[in-house]
Amino acid sequence: MKEILYGAAYYDEYMPYDRLKKDIAMMLKAGINVVRIAESTWSTYEKEPGKFDFSSVIRVIEAMKEAGIKVIIGTPTYAVPSWLISLDPTVMVERKGSGRAIYGMRQSMDITNKTYLHYAERIIRELMKVSANYDNVIGFQIDNETKAYGTSSKNVQVGFVQYLKKQFHNDIEAMNKAFGFDYWSNRVDSWENFPNVNGTINGSLGAEFEKYQRLLVDDFLQWQADIVSEYARDDQFITQNFDFEWRGYSYGVQPEVNHFKASKAITIAGCDIYHPAQDKLTGLEIAFCGDSTRQLKKTNYLVLETQAQGFSNMMPYRNQLILNAYSHLASGANAVMYWHWHSIHNSAESYWRGLLAHDFAENKTYQEAVVVGNELKRLSSKLVNLKKTNQVALLISNEALTALKWFPIDIKSDFSSTLSYNDIVRAYYRALYSLNIECDIVSVDSDDWQNYEVLVVPSLYVAPDDVYERLSYYVESGGKLLMSFKSAVADEYVTISHEGTPHKLQEVLGLSYNQFASPTGQTLSTSYFENGGVVEGFLEFLQPTTAQILAEYEDSQWYDNVAITVNHFGKGKAVYVGCHVDEKSLMKIIEKIFEDQFNYDLSKYQFPIIVKKGKNDFGKLVTYLLNYSDHTQQVVAEQSGLDLRNGRQILEGQLLSIASWDVIILEEN
Amino acid sequence: MKEILYGAAYYDEYMPYDRLKKDIAMMLKAGINVVRIAESTWSTYEKEPGKFDFSSVIRVIEAMKEAGIKVIIGTPTYAVPSWLISLDPTVMVERKGSGRAIYGMRQSMDITNKTYLHYAERIIRELMKVSANYDNVIGFQIDNETKAYGTSSKNVQVGFVQYLKKQFHNDIEAMNKAFGFDYWSNRVDSWENFPNVNGTINGSLGAEFEKYQRLLVDDFLQWQADIVSEYARDDQFITQNFDFEWRGYSYGVQPEVNHFKASKAITIAGCDIYHPAQDKLTGLEIAFCGDSTRQLKKTNYLVLETQAQGFSNMMPYRNQLILNAYSHLASGANAVMYWHWHSIHNSAESYWRGLLAHDFAENKTYQEAVVVGNELKRLSSKLVNLKKTNQVALLISNEALTALKWFPIDIKSDFSSTLSYNDIVRAYYRALYSLNIECDIVSVDSDDWQNYEVLVVPSLYVAPDDVYERLSYYVESGGKLLMSFKSAVADEYVTISHEGTPHKLQEVLGLSYNQFASPTGQTLSTSYFENGGVVEGFLEFLQPTTAQILAEYEDSQWYDNVAITVNHFGKGKAVYVGCHVDEKSLMKIIEKIFEDQFNYDLSKYQFPIIVKKGKNDFGKLVTYLLNYSDHTQQVVAEQSGLDLRNGRQILEGQLLSIASWDVIILEEN
Amino acid sequence: MKEILYGAAYYDEYMPYDRLKKDIAMMLKAGINVVRIAESTWSTYEKEPGKFDFSSVIRVIEAMKEAGIKVIIGTPTYAVPSWLISLDPTVMVERKGSGRAIYGMRQSMDITNKTYLHYAERIIRELMKVSANYDNVIGFQIDNETKAYGTSSKNVQVGFVQYLKKQFHNDIEAMNKAFGFDYWSNRVDSWENFPNVNGTINGSLGAEFEKYQRLLVDDFLQWQADIVSEYARDDQFITQNFDFEWRGYSYGVQPEVNHFKASKAITIAGCDIYHPAQDKLTGLEIAFCGDSTRQLKKTNYLVLETQAQGFSNMMPYRNQLILNAYSHLASGANAVMYWHWHSIHNSAESYWRGLLAHDFAENKTYQEAVVVGNELKRLSSKLVNLKKTNQVALLISNEALTALKWFPIDIKSDFSSTLSYNDIVRAYYRALYSLNIECDIVSVDSDDWQNYEVLVVPSLYVAPDDVYERLSYYVESGGKLLMSFKSAVADEYVTISHEGTPHKLQEVLGLSYNQFASPTGQTLSTSYFENGGVVEGFLEFLQPTTAQILAEYEDSQWYDNVAITVNHFGKGKAVYVGCHVDEKSLMKIIEKIFEDQFNYDLSKYQFPIIVKKGKNDFGKLVTYLLNYSDHTQQVVAEQSGLDLRNGRQILEGQLLSIASWDVIILEEN
Repeated sequence: MKEILYGAAYYDEYMPYDRLKKDIAMMLKAGINVVRIAESTWSTYEKEPGKFDFSSVIRVIEAMKEAGIKVIIGTPTYAVPSWLISLDPTVMVERKGSGRAIYGMRQSMDITNKTYLHYAERIIRELMKVSANYDNVIGFQIDNETKAYGTSSKNVQVGFVQYLKKQFHNDIEAMNKAFGFDYWSNRVDSWENFPNVNGTINGSLGAEFEKYQRLLVDDFLQWQADIVSEYARDDQFITQNFDFEWRGYSYGVQPEVNHFKASKAITIAGCDIYHPAQDKLTGLEIAFCGDSTRQLKKTNYLVLETQAQGFSNMMPYRNQLILNAYSHLASGANAVMYWHWHSIHNSAESYWRGLLAHDFAENKTYQEAVVVGNELKRLSSKLVNLKKTNQVALLISNEALTALKWFPIDIKSDFSSTLSYNDIVRAYYRALYSLNIECDIVSVDSDDWQNYEVLVVPSLYVAPDDVYERLSYYVESGGKLLMSFKSAVADEYVTISHEGTPHKLQEVLGLSYNQFASPTGQTLSTSYFENGGVVEGFLEFLQPTTAQILAEYEDSQWYDNVAITVNHFGKGKAVYVGCHVDEKSLMKIIEKIFEDQFNYDLSKYQFPIIVKKGKNDFGKLVTYLLNYSDHTQQVVAEQSGLDLRNGRQILEGQLLSIASWDVIILEEN
Repeated sequence: MKEILYGAAYYDEYMPYDRLKKDIAMMLKAGINVVRIAESTWSTYEKEPGKFDFSSVIRVIEAMKEAGIKVIIGTPTYAVPSWLISLDPTVMVERKGSGRAIYGMRQSMDITNKTYLHYAERIIRELMKVSANYDNVIGFQIDNETKAYGTSSKNVQVGFVQYLKKQFHNDIEAMNKAFGFDYWSNRVDSWENFPNVNGTINGSLGAEFEKYQRLLVDDFLQWQADIVSEYARDDQFITQNFDFEWRGYSYGVQPEVNHFKASKAITIAGCDIYHPAQDKLTGLEIAFCGDSTRQLKKTNYLVLETQAQGFSNMMPYRNQLILNAYSHLASGANAVMYWHWHSIHNSAESYWRGLLAHDFAENKTYQEAVVVGNELKRLSSKLVNLKKTNQVALLISNEALTALKWFPIDIKSDFSSTLSYNDIVRAYYRALYSLNIECDIVSVDSDDWQNYEVLVVPSLYVAPDDVYERLSYYVESGGKLLMSFKSAVADEYVTISHEGTPHKLQEVLGLSYNQFASPTGQTLSTSYFENGGVVEGFLEFLQPTTAQILAEYEDSQWYDNVAITVNHFGKGKAVYVGCHVDEKSLMKIIEKIFEDQFNYDLSKYQFPIIVKKGKNDFGKLVTYLLNYSDHTQQVVAEQSGLDLRNGRQILEGQLLSIASWDVIILEEN
Repeated sequence: MKEILYGAAYYDEYMPYDRLKKDIAMMLKAGINVVRIAESTWSTYEKEPGKFDFSSVIRVIEAMKEAGIKVIIGTPTYAVPSWLISLDPTVMVERKGSGRAIYGMRQSMDITNKTYLHYAERIIRELMKVSANYDNVIGFQIDNETKAYGTSSKNVQVGFVQYLKKQFHNDIEAMNKAFGFDYWSNRVDSWENFPNVNGTINGSLGAEFEKYQRLLVDDFLQWQADIVSEYARDDQFITQNFDFEWRGYSYGVQPEVNHFKASKAITIAGCDIYHPAQDKLTGLEIAFCGDSTRQLKKTNYLVLETQAQGFSNMMPYRNQLILNAYSHLASGANAVMYWHWHSIHNSAESYWRGLLAHDFAENKTYQEAVVVGNELKRLSSKLVNLKKTNQVALLISNEALTALKWFPIDIKSDFSSTLSYNDIVRAYYRALYSLNIECDIVSVDSDDWQNYEVLVVPSLYVAPDDVYERLSYYVESGGKLLMSFKSAVADEYVTISHEGTPHKLQEVLGLSYNQFASPTGQTLSTSYFENGGVVEGFLEFLQPTTAQILAEYEDSQWYDNVAITVNHFGKGKAVYVGCHVDEKSLMKIIEKIFEDQFNYDLSKYQFPIIVKKGKNDFGKLVTYLLNYSDHTQQVVAEQSGLDLRNGRQILEGQLLSIASWDVIILEEN
């Protein structure tokens, strides 16, 4: 990419009156150079089946072209016209628990439904025909935040049984065995009589079905990409807007899509990210999104959606919009695009506000965007294509996430509360982030994580044996492994190892365990770590063989009490954390382990000062110093260089003041 | 009306044995002069289709007649016989989310169903034939607590599409535009293919459908009233038992019925009211009910149901039954009727206790009723037909309530909690009530609110433009307007203004705003109000043009901070409160505004002393001094007069002691 | 029985590899002498309809036989094969609210379905044929934790109407009257048109239907027992695994089964019990289970399932497994069997851990079982068949439980929280347990509770008149009655008495009441009890006639305030507690009443020291001293005897130290 893209989603179709010229003028003032259009409004382009009208698309492309603004075209397939349901009601998704959805909500169709696919293909082709040839159309987004939406329509269940049949080489007995169907009389006697999967209580089957649903997403995106590719020029990219687990904001690993697999269909990674703001703005989600999305195509990525004003609890404080934009770039984003340009005047998301409010007037948030946009125009060549070479990888797994959903870690005695996979992943990521240990978030399926100096592996509950073997080989060859409780428990079909846990890793870790409990107020007793911390939610009773003990459980009335260990294995080292501890203590533990066990060169700064680095197209080191607090902070420059935002020269050792919610960007001389 | 009605609902049909004589004796002892009967027991009167037996009705009317007790007849249509469902299962209501209801619960039929209407009409006519001619039958209640019960049966949806077609003059494009159906591909291509409205995520459509459901209630009541009118004498009234939003007690504006429109069908307003009791008894709900119901027919009203012993958490303290009864009269009620005479021995509401417990014996609550009833017998002519001429109106809107349900004001960052329309209405009403500012609760549709000196307008989120124009004219002509945040945002189809907010009122209020946020601990910084108060849940960033600033947000990290303003406009004044504050502070703010800005003559007393006034049939001012606390309170008589309850003369300036939970009623000399 | 059975459920069918020999060796080491098999795995024995394969059953029986281990065979009917649903989808249960269940979960069939019964009978007969003849098969468990599973399939509703018809001698008017169907127009005009019972809001009908569902369980178990009896030898027992209300552990009376009636089908009582552990281990649930199950066949019983490692919050502390095992024996159990031998590697209950973890290795819990098992081998003849002769009975009623579910005791003003029947039963049982007042838990239907010296009757809300009359006669004849609030309110059809409450017991108790309330912070004012305690949730206003007042409500703003009374009646005494108080105060109240009013000889010890006694087969008194705390406790031996576990002689008056979570067992000399 040649420049940083700065822009917003733009919906001419939602405008209460013709705003195009006015909007473009405001965009130009704000340095906006790209818009994303069309991904939501199928029924506007095809008001009746087969009657196409792309006038709003064309007029926007042409007006943008005239203004020198680029356009990304989204295929409008994630929200279907009501006439499609009149034609074929089975287009609506059937879900576990709730039956067939009623028309209204977007993303509520069965993505495998033949009628849907037929009409979706037609609208995609028609849209491509009218839009692909424009110079300023730089790429295509296929669908949007695609998932299987829980589809378990009849055809999906038929497909799943075919998938299982293939998986088990037509051997139904093998499947019964692998899934443990003897339990509670759940055996399946024939592929034809496979019971409705929505009723299952079998975690192995349930998890396998969710994996299958994720595969449907891969297939669907590939199918769209193939169609789009027929029309796209070589200089036009194909992307998808990947999103994350949603808890009112982007929380962690997406349960319903394996981003790493699904991204095979695309040529450049895209994502959306929404995060806590105001006092709760930490940059954590932005960084998590970047560290993960950057790995999909192993290069820079596009932030296709992020919040401008957002909900009322996201209304940015003074300077936060600026801080957010640079945070994305610091993580390797080549595009920062808001959802969306203008706040919508009715329907459902009217209070998910865009850069402009409902009155379209300038406002303080827009005015900060003007600052960002004009700075980017000036600095684009220095900031674009930031390359990182991180020594640390955080290993994640969709399968572990799903398995721990089926076999939750209960942390209250009334089972009212559980510790989820993403809770644990976030806890480990947060510690790294707060310590300014930059990392890549890598899929367990990836074939390159063995190249990292340090691997952090939170609760890798399930994996095929070869993953465990690769982890073993990794340490043996000199790797440094930090692994948490609830790792290496089960095989790929979520069958718990009968050979002991951690499965296949007992030698590497120098321990085993076969008992565990919910803590009853234990703290860690340790001379190694300064503060032991409070054990929260879960603890394993480690039985070291060759491992050294780093921490034990205090006040234990159980027999055993080993909590954290380190083991030398081959040329490497493996630390195992056998319990969940409070946030602050986990940070202290990881700090000590990285420093003392892993000889990792820690940053002098910790959150709220976040330091992010990379090399730009000129081969120069660019350092972002981000202040995630409402106070001015002092930092010492680690090398001489140019303060890009205000053009002053900085000397090594110089004391720099970073205002609240502000950022300094240094380029080495 | 010539006297205060004091009574109870009476169900001879539920009696375990023949109690009629005994009950009447107890009623007479308690000064009871009216009973309401028949509204719940269709299946007793028509045990099989077409076989009528009104013996229990007739015997009660006749026995009451002999005892000199009046009777209100309720049409028994709100609970249908099981045989009606055997005849036609489609009588049961179909609701969003839950499909067709199963028989059992009352108020679960489709009020538009033809079978239901046919049989309902027949039972009404038969009942009228046997009951209307009795002298002591003073009026009829049509149905009970009528609503549409969420009906979205097929016929209702067909009717709704017809309604829309008419509304939009058959122009489907106009509807698509008005509702913003381009959003998420929701366009409707033909009236025939209108999708099931239950699936919609479009707030404009959703709110319109709920308005349509409210219209069904208006139609249904008018239909019943027309039938009843064929039989009723001129001296017999027709009423309906209107109820309020229910949160375990009567909370605020009824979401499912527009009382003001529905009351066109009736000749006298009736209502029921249930409220917190014991330590939580404040009189607020009683007053809200009165200030609202009094406006329906612009005169006195009937409290057709209120609690006697109620649930166990409503069990009145010593003297509270007396206080409650007089509170109703102080608000302008001409009837206080308990639900119900006796506690029911089985089925569903056995612990919603009546005046008598299950043993029918005298009890402490009944004994207080004896006090009330006998005092009323004595004082009836002094207390009946109390006329109020309030200077202040609180403007309410069913449409605003519904719109804010579809577009909730989120006040927690996890969206787990919202500030509802009724929360806001109650907050403003509570402040007025606590300050003893008597007000009328008036519908925004009403044509007479321009006559009030002060209008209080909480969160009038939607309205047609002419309402905003009338508000503007009101201030210009000298009116005093107190308007809260989230007012004048959207048009009648819940489309947010693109011309800026407050829509059409920027000149009147001397401000605009286009940004708002969830507060993060802000307080009000103000020299005008003594204590600023804590901003809770929501804040707007006001941009004054001609308005003066009365309060700002302290500790704001946003750019703007204007919170409360006042503006002179024409001959009037308009105060705008741009945020939600805690209860105590809101009271202080309103006190100051009324006193200082509106030159309103405030009462010397505040809650827990409540002062309510009106003129009686003799043209004399009657003042109720109500003590809503468990301590004796002292008040100074504001004028000389007669203490009606104990007959002593009071001199102006005399210090009066009001016992805990007690009331003094003064009639001016 | 000749010896204590010690064992576990054993599932050869779930094994990842052939473990039988290894497992038996580990069992023998642990002194295990019994396994329960087969109750869950129908689909393994009948993989396709009619093709039977009991090889896993036979090989286990034979291997156990060789090892001298006994076997209990469970009929595998509580979890059905998926092919059965393919054959007939109506086998799946239809439930109120959720319609027909989807296949997957166990215990989700309609136990009255003809297809189910046909195939269930066939598999039972085939299993009996191959297993009943083995010497070491000592008995049969019919089904498992059987309930009606909420069945309200069409055939069940037809059956229910037949049942009602019979109940009311075909007199539909009598039924309408008994159930109060006049209320809300709920009358039923013909048996044919009986509406779907799932919709009812009538508590009388609802409770009657739940009673009918419990009768279905009785019938189903009798039907199974009859089949099994055809094959069983005289020396083989028939049992059922009864369980309790489930709130994440065994909480109290089972709502869906009347254990006392259902146990007619069996020859020896069996049960399962799961309970809080770790810091929350109190022994309460174990004792409740024992005191109740011991009454089913009026002799010793089998604990067919209890926790070994259990969920992570049940992971036993050091010595707790030993304490638990002896606690069962102290209550009269003749068998302690874990669920289950090994932790399961997949499906649904993988973290409900057995004695062995997933790795099958020895672990600390297993090692404690080795201690228990070997002690039991040695002490079996001294501990088996413990006979108790308690003076106190706690009276329970399924009907009261159900009725109070339909008419809950609301204890929060927003109705968000209720006091359930089991909450109250547990509160009274906990007080007795903590005071070491051993009791029998007896059904109100039982014909022998008049023989007890003291009857404790918590909230016997409903009963037929003859029960109330028997209670009256009991006191008159010299019995001591302790009765709580909400007793004797309604008749067997849940119709509240119109003759006053407590119904039929006003003379016995020397009081009546007809008003009650939710407390608003009242405490008890009493000179009789030392500490009055806090009134929680509910209070009645007692009107003593002949009763003496023991406690009153302080700070009451109501008229009345009598809280607790005692009355002499005939030769007996009756105490009535008119309110719910906090746990500690209730214990103090009951202590005082037992000591002072009932002249009961209280133990010197209170919780956490629990003392349990009985006579063994040698006619000697055996005393268990159980320490439910994490501290060593001192107790004084009450008589000389043998410390069975360590063989030392103990002298009367000797000070004994009981280690934390440990037990001393004394046999009198």
